[in-house]
Amino acid sequence: MSSAVLKISCPDRKGIVAEVCQILADCSANIIDAQQHREDLDSQFFMYVKFDCSELNCERELLENRLKEKSELIGFNWTLSFKDQKKRLAIMVSKYDHCLYDLLLKHKYGELDVDIALIVSNHPDLKATAEHFGVPYFHIPRNKDNREQADQIAVDLFKEQKIDFIAMARYMQILTPILIQAYPNKIINVHHGFLPAFKGAKPYHQAYAKGVKLIGSTSHYANEELDMGPIIDQVTVRVSHAYSADDMVRKGRDMENRVLTNAVKAHAADRIIVYKGRTIIFS
Amino acid sequence: MSSAVLKISCPDRKGIVAEVCQILADCSANIIDAQQHREDLDSQFFMYVKFDCSELNCERELLENRLKEKSELIGFNWTLSFKDQKKRLAIMVSKYDHCLYDLLLKHKYGELDVDIALIVSNHPDLKATAEHFGVPYFHIPRNKDNREQADQIAVDLFKEQKIDFIAMARYMQILTPILIQAYPNKIINVHHGFLPAFKGAKPYHQAYAKGVKLIGSTSHYANEELDMGPIIDQVTVRVSHAYSADDMVRKGRDMENRVLTNAVKAHAADRIIVYKGRTIIFS
Amino acid sequence: MSSAVLKISCPDRKGIVAEVCQILADCSANIIDAQQHREDLDSQFFMYVKFDCSELNCERELLENRLKEKSELIGFNWTLSFKDQKKRLAIMVSKYDHCLYDLLLKHKYGELDVDIALIVSNHPDLKATAEHFGVPYFHIPRNKDNREQADQIAVDLFKEQKIDFIAMARYMQILTPILIQAYPNKIINVHHGFLPAFKGAKPYHQAYAKGVKLIGSTSHYANEELDMGPIIDQVTVRVSHAYSADDMVRKGRDMENRVLTNAVKAHAADRIIVYKGRTIIFS
Amino acid sequence: MSSAVLKISCPDRKGIVAEVCQILADCSANIIDAQQHREDLDSQFFMYVKFDCSELNCERELLENRLKEKSELIGFNWTLSFKDQKKRLAIMVSKYDHCLYDLLLKHKYGELDVDIALIVSNHPDLKATAEHFGVPYFHIPRNKDNREQADQIAVDLFKEQKIDFIAMARYMQILTPILIQAYPNKIINVHHGFLPAFKGAKPYHQAYAKGVKLIGSTSHYANEELDMGPIIDQVTVRVSHAYSADDMVRKGRDMENRVLTNAVKAHAADRIIVYKGRTIIFS
Repeated sequence: MSSAVLKISCPDRKGIVAEVCQILADCSANIIDAQQHREDLDSQFFMYVKFDCSELNCERELLENRLKEKSELIGFNWTLSFKDQKKRLAIMVSKYDHCLYDLLLKHKYGELDVDIALIVSNHPDLKATAEHFGVPYFHIPRNKDNREQADQIAVDLFKEQKIDFIAMARYMQILTPILIQAYPNKIINVHHGFLPAFKGAKPYHQAYAKGVKLIGSTSHYANEELDMGPIIDQVTVRVSHAYSADDMVRKGRDMENRVLTNAVKAHAADRIIVYKGRTIIFS
Repeated sequence: MSSAVLKISCPDRKGIVAEVCQILADCSANIIDAQQHREDLDSQFFMYVKFDCSELNCERELLENRLKEKSELIGFNWTLSFKDQKKRLAIMVSKYDHCLYDLLLKHKYGELDVDIALIVSNHPDLKATAEHFGVPYFHIPRNKDNREQADQIAVDLFKEQKIDFIAMARYMQILTPILIQAYPNKIINVHHGFLPAFKGAKPYHQAYAKGVKLIGSTSHYANEELDMGPIIDQVTVRVSHAYSADDMVRKGRDMENRVLTNAVKAHAADRIIVYKGRTIIFS
Repeated sequence: MSSAVLKISCPDRKGIVAEVCQILADCSANIIDAQQHREDLDSQFFMYVKFDCSELNCERELLENRLKEKSELIGFNWTLSFKDQKKRLAIMVSKYDHCLYDLLLKHKYGELDVDIALIVSNHPDLKATAEHFGVPYFHIPRNKDNREQADQIAVDLFKEQKIDFIAMARYMQILTPILIQAYPNKIINVHHGFLPAFKGAKPYHQAYAKGVKLIGSTSHYANEELDMGPIIDQVTVRVSHAYSADDMVRKGRDMENRVLTNAVKAHAADRIIVYKGRTIIFS
Repeated sequence: MSSAVLKISCPDRKGIVAEVCQILADCSANIIDAQQHREDLDSQFFMYVKFDCSELNCERELLENRLKEKSELIGFNWTLSFKDQKKRLAIMVSKYDHCLYDLLLKHKYGELDVDIALIVSNHPDLKATAEHFGVPYFHIPRNKDNREQADQIAVDLFKEQKIDFIAMARYMQILTPILIQAYPNKIINVHHGFLPAFKGAKPYHQAYAKGVKLIGSTSHYANEELDMGPIIDQVTVRVSHAYSADDMVRKGRDMENRVLTNAVKAHAADRIIVYKGRTIIFS
C-alpha cells in the first residue's frame, strides 16, 4: 500500500470537510485516517487526511490540480505529500555525538522514514562515525568571523543535495538568518532545557542553580529568535539535589535523543502544521 | 519502634560523621538510615540520620544536651525531631477543593504522618467538606483591603493552635510578610505551572500560548518573592495542541495533588533542608 | 454544539468509508474527528466518527434508519450515540473509598460526562460519603451464600434505574454470571495488579514476593473469567526493595484511581470497541 | 577522592552498625553514604556503606583483615570493593545491536564505571561495530548441538580475561549451566517483556495477543530457570491497539537499553545484593 498525506488549513467554515472528501473519493483515494483541529481563539480550521493512493483512478497531478482549483475557489492552504517520495534529511553536528547516533541507529532500524542524505559539522571529529554508517560527511569550519559564509556554504550544499529538512543534532551553533530563512520551519533544533525556562547557554547549570526537581529537553523549529521557535516535543526526567550540573548533562542525553528523534519522525511523516508560533501535531 | 531524625549542616570538615555517630552510639541510639550530601560549590556538608530511639539509655533531653555541647564545640547546625511527636498541619484553601481532598484522604489512609489541626479559608464554601472529615474549619474573609489583618488573624490562630507547618492547598492568595515571616520555610505552596517558567497568574494560559507539550506543577516553600521560593517537588504531564487552557486546568489537578502531598510528606518526615534557595531532600 | 459518535466494524472492504461519509453528508452532519483501525491478522475494519449533529437537516431517527438500511445492504455492525443523552453510571464499592472519591470528584469537576445514578455497596460504611456528594446509596449485603441473590437484586435495581454501565470501584467481590451477563462489556473493574501477571487475590503481595521493580494497576471489562476480561487501561509506578506489600498497597491507590477513571471516561465517550478479547480505544 | 563500598548482610541484631562503623573510624575511613535495609519476613539485615578511602591510616589489607575477624566473631557476610579497581565487563551479543550501542556509548561518555574488556557473539555481524569502538570481538559460533562446548569456550575466555561480570545485550541464546554456574548473580540479561508476565519467546507477540496497554522490559540476573532470575530493573511504555507486534518490537528498543544499562551501572557500583531471589539495590 502506498499512502499520501493531505494537510489543510483555513478559517473555519461549513462543508470544507465534505468538499475535500469528495475530491478524494472522486479519485478513488481511500481515507485511512482523518484528524481535525480548530483553534477556538481565532476560528482557524486544520485538517490532516491520510489516504491510500495505490489505486488512484487518475494521475497524481490531476488530483493536485483538483485540490488547487478548489483551494482557489473556497480559500484554503494545502500541502500534499506522497510516502513513496522520501524526504531528504541533513544532520548538523558539532562534537557531541549522542543525538547523531540515535538518528543513525533509528534510521537503520527502519523507524525513520527519510533518506539521511548527509552530515555537516563544524568539526572533523565525527567523520569516522559517519563513515561507519555510510553517510557522507562534510566538514564546514565555522567561527565567529565566518558564520555567514559558513552558513551560505551549507545552504548551497543543501540546495544542491535537494535537502528537505535539517536536524541540528546538538550543533551548538547559533544559525544566521541565511540558513534559517532558507529553510523556514524545516530546521529542527534540540535545546537541552525545558523551554521556555532556561533559554540560551548552559541550561543544565541554570537548572541546577534554581534547584529544579525535573530537568527537560525541547525540540523546536529554529527561527530567528534564539530558542523561541515553535515547540515540537518535550521530555522531562527527575533529578535530585544530589545531581551536579554535570550529572544533569549526563542524564539529559537520552531525553535529547528522544525529543529530536520524535520531532524528525513527526516532520518526516508530515504530521506537523505550524500556526502562530505553536505546532499542531497530528498523531 | 520509635524513631527520630537528626539533621546536621556545617562547612565540611573531617570527622564530623564519626563524632556524631559516637554520641548516638553512647546513648544506645541504633542508626537506621544515614545520608549525606556535600555542596561542591561552597563545601557545605549536610547529614540526615534516622535512628531507633526506643531503647535509649538516657533521657531524650540528655541526648539533646550532648548534641548541643558538641555543636558549640565544633560548629554545626542541627535539628532533632521525634516521630512520636507528630507535627501539626494547617491547611489553607480557597474554593478549589482537589488538593484539600487529596490531603484529607491520604491522611485518612495513614500516609501523612501529621495531625491535621485545622483548615483556614477565605471563603465559607468548603466547610461541609471539612466537617465530613472532622476537621475544624475557620473562615477568615480576605480582600485586597484587609490582607495584613486577615493574615494576622491566621498567624494568631496558628500560634494558639501550635501549628508546625502550613499547606496552601490552592489558596490562591498572595500572602503578606506577616504570615511568611512567622513561618519561614514552613509554608508549602503549590503552583500550577512548571517553575521557573510560567510564574504568577494563569500559568496554564501562559503554557497554552507558548505551545508547550508538557505542563507541570511545582510545590515550593513560600517566601517573599512570588513563586520563587525553594522548590520541593515537580511533576509534568503530556499535553497536545488539542488541549485548551481549560483542558490543561483539568489535567493539572492530579499533578497539583501529587506535588503538594509529596511535599507535605517530606516536610512531615523531616527530610528537607533548605540551603541557599534550594532544597536538599533526603529519600 | 451537540455531537454524536458513530462506531462501525466489519470485515475490511473498499468504499465503506465513502458510503458512510456520504450518509452523514446527506444529513448535514459535519465530521469532527474520524479514526480508523484495521486488524491485520483477520482483516477486520473499525471506524470511529465523531460529528456535529446540531444542524442535522433531518430527524435523528431518519439518520439511524439510513445507517440501518446501509448496514443491512453491505454488512457492518454499528452503534450511534448522542452526547446530549448522558449515560447513567452505577458505582459498586466495598469499603475502600479512594476510587469512589476519584469518580465523584472528577464528576463534580465536569471531567466525567455521565450521570452518576447510584452507588451500590455490600457494606453500609460509605453511605455518608455518598450523601456528601448527593448520590443515592444502596446497601445490598452479600456473602458467600447469597451471591446470586444479591447480584439479582443489583441487576433489578440497575434495570429499574436504566443504568447504562457499571464501575466496580474496588468492589472486591467476584460477580456471578447473573450480573456479568446482564451487562456484557459494560462492567468496568479495576485490578490492583499488572495483568496478566498477578491475577486473583493479593496481587501486591505476589508482586512483593517476585521482587518486581514496578507495580501496576489494570482496568478491564469484567467477564466470566476472573481478571481476564479485555484490558482498558494500565499504569505502573516504580517501587524498590524497601517497599513492603503494605507500602505497595498505599502507593497503588493513585494508580487504581487513574486506570478506573480513565476507563470510565473512555466508555462514557463511546471511544471503546471490544474485539476478540482486546479493546480498540479511539483517542 | 578514592572511595570503597562495603556491603554486609546477616540476621538482624543490635550493635552491628556501631561495630562496623568503629572499624571504619579506626582506619580513618570517612563514611560518605550509609544505607540499611531489613527484611521483616525473616529479620535479615543488610547494610551498604560507601566511604572515602583516600586517607586510610593503614593498608587496605589490614582493613580487610579487621572486617574478616569481626565477621567471624559476630557472624555476618561482607564484601569490600574499591572504586579504583574497575570491574571488567564482557558483553554477549547476537545480531541485534541496540543494547550493545547503548553500553558502548554510555561507557564512552563516562557513565559506566567499568572496563569493557571484550565482546562475544555467536555471529560475526557486529565485528565492525566493536572495532569502531576499539573493543576486542570474539566470534564463538553456537548452535543447538554445540551449546555446552560454546559456553565452555566462553567461560575459558572470560576466566583468562579476568572478567568480573557479563551483560547479555540481547544475546538471544539460552545459556547452559556451564556459563551460569561459573558466574552466579554476575550475568545480567535483558528480557523484552514485563516479567513475570510474558516469559520465554516472542514476548511482544504475547503482549499483543493479550491486548495490554503497556509493554515492558526487564533486566535480571540469569539463573538456571529461564527468565526467572532476580529482577534488577523494569521499565514500561504505553502502547495502543494500533501497535502491531512489530511496532512493539520497535518501541521496545529504548526500554531494553535503559534496563540493561541501568543494571550494569548498579552492578558496577556494587549497589546490588541478591537475597532469596530478589534484589536489594541501594540508591
